[in-house]
This record gives sequence, structure tokens and C-alpha cells, in this order.
Amino acid sequence: MNKSRLEAFTDGVIAIIITILVLELRRPEGGTFAALWELRHAFFIYFVSFATLAIYWNNHHHLFQAVTAVSGKILWLNILLLLCISLFPFTTSWVSTYLFSQAAAITYGLLMLTADVVWLLLSRALLEKHSQNSILSQSLQGSKKSAFSISIITTGLIIGWFWPPAVIIGCLVSLTPWIIPDKRIEQYMQANPEKNQKD
Amino acid sequence: MNKSRLEAFTDGVIAIIITILVLELRRPEGGTFAALWELRHAFFIYFVSFATLAIYWNNHHHLFQAVTAVSGKILWLNILLLLCISLFPFTTSWVSTYLFSQAAAITYGLLMLTADVVWLLLSRALLEKHSQNSILSQSLQGSKKSAFSISIITTGLIIGWFWPPAVIIGCLVSLTPWIIPDKRIEQYMQANPEKNQKD
Amino acid sequence: MNKSRLEAFTDGVIAIIITILVLELRRPEGGTFAALWELRHAFFIYFVSFATLAIYWNNHHHLFQAVTAVSGKILWLNILLLLCISLFPFTTSWVSTYLFSQAAAITYGLLMLTADVVWLLLSRALLEKHSQNSILSQSLQGSKKSAFSISIITTGLIIGWFWPPAVIIGCLVSLTPWIIPDKRIEQYMQANPEKNQKD
Amino acid sequence: MNKSRLEAFTDGVIAIIITILVLELRRPEGGTFAALWELRHAFFIYFVSFATLAIYWNNHHHLFQAVTAVSGKILWLNILLLLCISLFPFTTSWVSTYLFSQAAAITYGLLMLTADVVWLLLSRALLEKHSQNSILSQSLQGSKKSAFSISIITTGLIIGWFWPPAVIIGCLVSLTPWIIPDKRIEQYMQANPEKNQKD
Repeated sequence: MNKSRLEAFTDGVIAIIITILVLELRRPEGGTFAALWELRHAFFIYFVSFATLAIYWNNHHHLFQAVTAVSGKILWLNILLLLCISLFPFTTSWVSTYLFSQAAAITYGLLMLTADVVWLLLSRALLEKHSQNSILSQSLQGSKKSAFSISIITTGLIIGWFWPPAVIIGCLVSLTPWIIPDKRIEQYMQANPEKNQKD
Repeated sequence: MNKSRLEAFTDGVIAIIITILVLELRRPEGGTFAALWELRHAFFIYFVSFATLAIYWNNHHHLFQAVTAVSGKILWLNILLLLCISLFPFTTSWVSTYLFSQAAAITYGLLMLTADVVWLLLSRALLEKHSQNSILSQSLQGSKKSAFSISIITTGLIIGWFWPPAVIIGCLVSLTPWIIPDKRIEQYMQANPEKNQKD
Repeated sequence: MNKSRLEAFTDGVIAIIITILVLELRRPEGGTFAALWELRHAFFIYFVSFATLAIYWNNHHHLFQAVTAVSGKILWLNILLLLCISLFPFTTSWVSTYLFSQAAAITYGLLMLTADVVWLLLSRALLEKHSQNSILSQSLQGSKKSAFSISIITTGLIIGWFWPPAVIIGCLVSLTPWIIPDKRIEQYMQANPEKNQKD
Repeated sequence: MNKSRLEAFTDGVIAIIITILVLELRRPEGGTFAALWELRHAFFIYFVSFATLAIYWNNHHHLFQAVTAVSGKILWLNILLLLCISLFPFTTSWVSTYLFSQAAAITYGLLMLTADVVWLLLSRALLEKHSQNSILSQSLQGSKKSAFSISIITTGLIIGWFWPPAVIIGCLVSLTPWIIPDKRIEQYMQANPEKNQKD
């Protein structure tokens, strides 16, 4: 299994999931602006999920830029990540229908948390396999971002047990450090162009 | 982030959105030609949306042909464009059910307008990053096309406030200059084949 | 626009349409074999549509193997072909619900006929642009196949006006010459490997 | 038809099917954990189908790594495999609604069995075309895995006639040997890197 196929498949699945999300946006029940306004919560959740998936796609590419070999463990962690991502339309649909429901919000947050944990495990597995070079630094920073996201979502889940919207706010805040992917990988790649050619 | 991945992801999302549109075409309620005829408005809107997406796909490739580097700003403007495009099935479905509804038509037009504005910002961001070469001319013409489209859709929206179908007609007319992508980029690429090899 | 992108986009759209078809296969209304048997007509139509799309995909690749340049006309005829193909789930869904309905069967056949005519125009446009070489022979044979399919579907449509299932049988028969793509292109490509490298 | 296109199309279809599966997971009917718990069977079946498709994707790549030429027979067996795979959302949806229904479970198992048989025929067809080299050994092991899977699913079907859940358990067990793809192909490819360059 070479890495370009893993990337192409991951891209394909994320592209499809990001567009399947939109199928959850039901047609307004009436031809008025009031009917559209009724869907404002659904739209807000849709944007959170869209942004999360766009950020996963972007960071996935960054993470794999320095990767030169894919092991069975990495492959299966990646498939586990795709499994989490493929459940986003389900939780998005549920939480957008029952916005202030404790169960839906907690489930949404738990899925986001699971995806973050799988991401952390995936970046650790990649680190193990490429530990001899300086992109170690990047991976450690990756862990710092993951630690931030995981603790924010966990906090959101705890508050969300009493006030459900906190979960969604927590998920949104947890995305912030990932908007700008790690510059160190890019700098490393530019400084070591021959690494890029290997694969 | 290299440009070929950005293009592949954009292509994937547009290909999926263009086919998800068809899911909005419900089965006629009966086995007669009259039942099919009932859907003529839905079909008309479907064709407008299909043509818009085909034109975006075509022009996106043209625009990126001369691109050699992708910045974070370009990446996020591109994701914003995909977000607009991913909402097309939603507005198409709404406007095809409530064809003469002011709210649905205005929303359809506003989404089209937003996509055009994001496109303009995206082509400007690309121009900034590649300003030293002669494809500047192309980008300026791109702006002329954008100015035309934006003013036509705006006009459609103003008339559409009183007579909703004007919005859809405006959107359709706004596509005309984009049917034939800018020839100057192709000419430039043929004259400067080495630029093409860089990426 | 280079041909590999056109092919990738076409592949993407066909892959999505072929899988969207399955969404039309509703869950049997009950947990018995009798409930499954109720859907036998839906399954039959599904298989005809699946086979048609698989054959289009296969022949599209064959046709484009010898192609070295893509003009605006070819691009737009290809988009028109994708438009026809994207309507397959709609007609498949209609005809599988109202199997013995004249209107649904005729519409299904007319779409198939339109796709075949667009295919013929597309292969002629490709021939025009590449007329100086010996793949002319292939294109002519392509026209023979098209003539066969178009006349079979037309016959099916005429009989189908009185006995609707004839349309579907006509469509199925019209596929037979396309199951084995034209060997001459492959032989030509093997004899002239340098042509393949050009693009 | 070169093999990279066949792989890209297969990847595309599997990526779409794996994400269409999620559309079968309906929104819980209520905002409580009890409503989510109601869907536990649907989730279980979803995971089995997701795992099956991920394993097919993974093994398909492994199988095709050593492939250098694609014949018409291989092409059509691959399309037959995709046809089986494209019916997974249908059977998954049926069996998750009527979990303890004999008909749904048997149909689910029969589809899985058919896919395994098509896979066996496909790997045999690939073996025929590449029989002169040492990846023969791999193919034979492939047959051993297929024999295991086919007999486990058949056993599951027989028991499932009386106790339907046995079919799903059989399908899940039948996946186990495929989790780790055949290492011999990888070893062969590493030992013979020039074979990889051919295509």
C-alpha cells in the first residue's frame, strides 16, 4: 500500500461525506424567509461539521506530506478515522433536529472526541515509523494541538451535560489551532526536498 | 499543499454535488406524461444549477492552469467556494418546489452572488501570488467577467423582489461569458510550456 | 484543458451516478422473501441501468485512449453526455415504480436515445480533431455501433408506445455491441506507443 | 484499459458506497439516549458492512499491485464485483430494519457469498494472465482465504435459516483472514521493484 492511494481514498471519502452533509439540510417547509429562518440551527451545525471536515482534510494532507511509508497499523488507524468521519452526517442530522437535546449534543461531542483521539494515535503511529528525522518536532506540536482540542471538547461535554449547546461551542473552539496547519512540516519539506521525492 | 491535490479535491466535490442535484428530482407522481410535465420547473432549475456547476468546474481548471503555488489564503477561499457550491442542491431543491416564492428565488440568487464574489476574491488572491507574470491580463479579464455576472445577478435580485423568476433568468444570463473559458491563459501556457512543468 | 482531467471528472461522475442508482432501490416493505420478490422489476431496471453506465464508462476510456487534444466543443459534448447520464437515476426510479406505464418507459428510452446521439456526436467531434491518423477506421466502426443502438432503441420506442416493456428490452439489446470495446484502438495504440506518450 | 484507471474507478465506487451506507442510518426518533440505543442493531450491521468494504478496498489494492495487464474478462469480473458491492447499502438497510427476519439475513449473506465467489474468480483470472511468475503462491493463498470465507458464510447461511443472526456473525468471522493482506505480494514487489515500474 503506497501513501498516494491512501491519500486518494481518504480524499474521496472526505469529499463525499462533506457533500452528503448537505442532504441533511431539508427543504424549508414553505416559501418564506420565516421558513428558512426556522433552519438556522441546522445551518449552524452544518457549518461546524463542514469546517471540521475541511480542517481534517487539510491537516491530513499536511501530516502525510512527510510520510514515506505506510504500515498496516497506520492503514487501519486511518480507516478508523474515516469511520468516525463517516458518522458525522448522522450526528449532524440528529443534533440539528434536536438542538437542545442532551443526548444528541453529547453524542456529537463524543464522536468529535473519538475522531481527535484517533487522529492523535494516527500521528503517533506515523511518528514511530519516521522517528529518526526532525519532523519529530512537528508531531510533538501536533500532540499539543490534540491535547488542546481533546481538553476543550471534554470541557464542552461536561458543561454540555447541563447545557447542551456548550458541546457544539466546544467543538467549534477546538478547531481553532488547526485552521493554520503546522508550518514546520512545510519548512522541513522545503529544506529537504529530496525527502519528498522518495515516495 | 500542492495544487494538484487542491484541484483533485475540488473536482471530487463538484462531481458529487452535480450528481446529488439529481436526487432533488423526485419521481413523478404517476405514470403519465402529465405527471412528468408537472416537474418542468424542477427540471429547468436543475439545468440551470447543472450548467452553473459545469461552468465553475471548467473555469476553475482554467484559472488554476497558470497557478504554481497555493497559499493558506487561496486554500481557504477555495474551501469557501466549495461551501457555496455545496449549498446549491439545497437552494435548487427549495426553489424548484416553491418556484414563484420570493424567499426561495432571492436565496438562490444570493447564493449564486456569494459564489461569484468568492470566485472574484479567489482569482484576486491568485493574481497577488503570481503578479510578476503576464497572466495578469487574464485575471483582469476574469474580473471583467465577474463584474458582469455580479451586476446581472444583482439586477435579477432587485427585479426578483417583485417578480421572482427574474432571479433565475439573471443567474442563467450571468453564466454566458463563462461558457468559453479565457483563451489567453491557454495561449500563455502554450507560449510558456516551461511554466507548466514547474508544478 | 488536458484530457486526463476530463477523464477523471467523467469517471467521478459515472462512479457517483452508478452508486446513486442504488439509492432508488427502496428497502422491501417487510422481512419476507415475498417482499423482496415484489422488487424484481426494480432490480431488473437497476441492472439494465448499471450495465449501461458500466458500458459507457468502459467505452469512454477506449474512445479517449487515442485522443491527444480536447477542444471546447468536445468538452461541452462531454458535459452534455454527463447531463444525460446524470438523469439515469431519475428515469430508472420512475420506470421501476411504474413499470408498465407508457410515459415512464418512453422517457427512459428517449433518454437512452439522446445519450447515444450525444455519444455519436462526441465521437465525430473527436474524429474531426484527429482525422489525419488511422484511428479513423475505429471511429467509423463506432458509428456503425451507434447506428445499430440508435435504430434498436427507436424500434423499441415505437413498439413501446403500445407495449411499454419493449423499450427496456430495446435498451438492453442496444448494449450488446458495446460490451467488447473496439479492439482496433488497442491494436493501434500498441502499434504506435509514441502516440500514447504525447498527452 | 490500463490498470490504474480500473483501480481509480474501483476506489471511487467503494468510497461512495462506504459513505452511502451512512445514509441508511436514520436519525433517532427522539432526542434521548434511549432513541439512540434503539438503533444499536442498525449500527452493528453498519459496522459489519463498513468493515467488509474497507477490507475489500484494502485487498483489492494488494491483489492489483502485482498486476501488469488487464483483460476484458478481468474488467468484467471487476465490474461484477462492483455490482455486488453496490448492493451492500440495500441489504444493509433491509437487514438493519428487519434484523431477525430470515429473508433479510439470508439475502445479506447470499450477497456476501456472491461477492466472495466473484473475488475468487477475479483472482483466478488475474492468476491465469500472470501465471509465469512467483506471485502464483500468493494467489493460491488467496484461494485458501476465499475457501475459508465461503465455507464460513455458507455455514452461517445454513444455521441462519433457523436462527437469522448467525448469518451476520458468519459474515463477520469470514472477514478475519483478510484484515492483514497477503504479505507475500509486498515481499515479492520489494524483491522485484522493476515489475512495479512496468505499468
